[in-house]
Amino acid sequence: MEKLTEQELQQFLESHQGWQLVDEKWIEKKYRFKEYLNGVDFVQEIAKASEEINHHPFIAIDYKLVRVRLSSWKENGITPLDTKLAEQYDAIYETIKNV
Amino acid sequence: MEKLTEQELQQFLESHQGWQLVDEKWIEKKYRFKEYLNGVDFVQEIAKASEEINHHPFIAIDYKLVRVRLSSWKENGITPLDTKLAEQYDAIYETIKNV
Repeated sequence: MEKLTEQELQQFLESHQGWQLVDEKWIEKKYRFKEYLNGVDFVQEIAKASEEINHHPFIAIDYKLVRVRLSSWKENGITPLDTKLAEQYDAIYETIKNV
Repeated sequence: MEKLTEQELQQFLESHQGWQLVDEKWIEKKYRFKEYLNGVDFVQEIAKASEEINHHPFIAIDYKLVRVRLSSWKENGITPLDTKLAEQYDAIYETIKNV
């Protein structure tokens, strides 16, 4: 799989709220929850989606704040695999955030 | 709740494998899993145990490695609440690690 071009990456970041580039090779987003265990449920759902395509994010749970980072190691940057998962995570968040 | 004395803390660390003191105010342990989703299940179980007593760890999931940190903010250090949860996490790990 090939890395996104600079332009494709910018386009993704501009059209997906909350995602930002970190250390030039990660895309990161912080998701906030009303209840602690909702955040934990979110983590379980995004982990399942990630395992399905064998591409795994770094996840940090700091009380009601869940921080997610994606990168493609082999390509040392962002590929469509990362942005595809990012969109899935956002969709999962929509189903959980107001529970 | 009062902080552990230096001696109590050392005693805990010496008698609980894998736990170490970090930045003088956290106890931290890294748990390794054979399967990614086992680690995620572990996170859900320790989160439930933590929510029950309203005392929450910092959790990082880096593929099959789960890193957990505990501290008591109000006391700016380690209290019996932290070591009690640490022991619960170890017990939960025993039930999940070989699944």
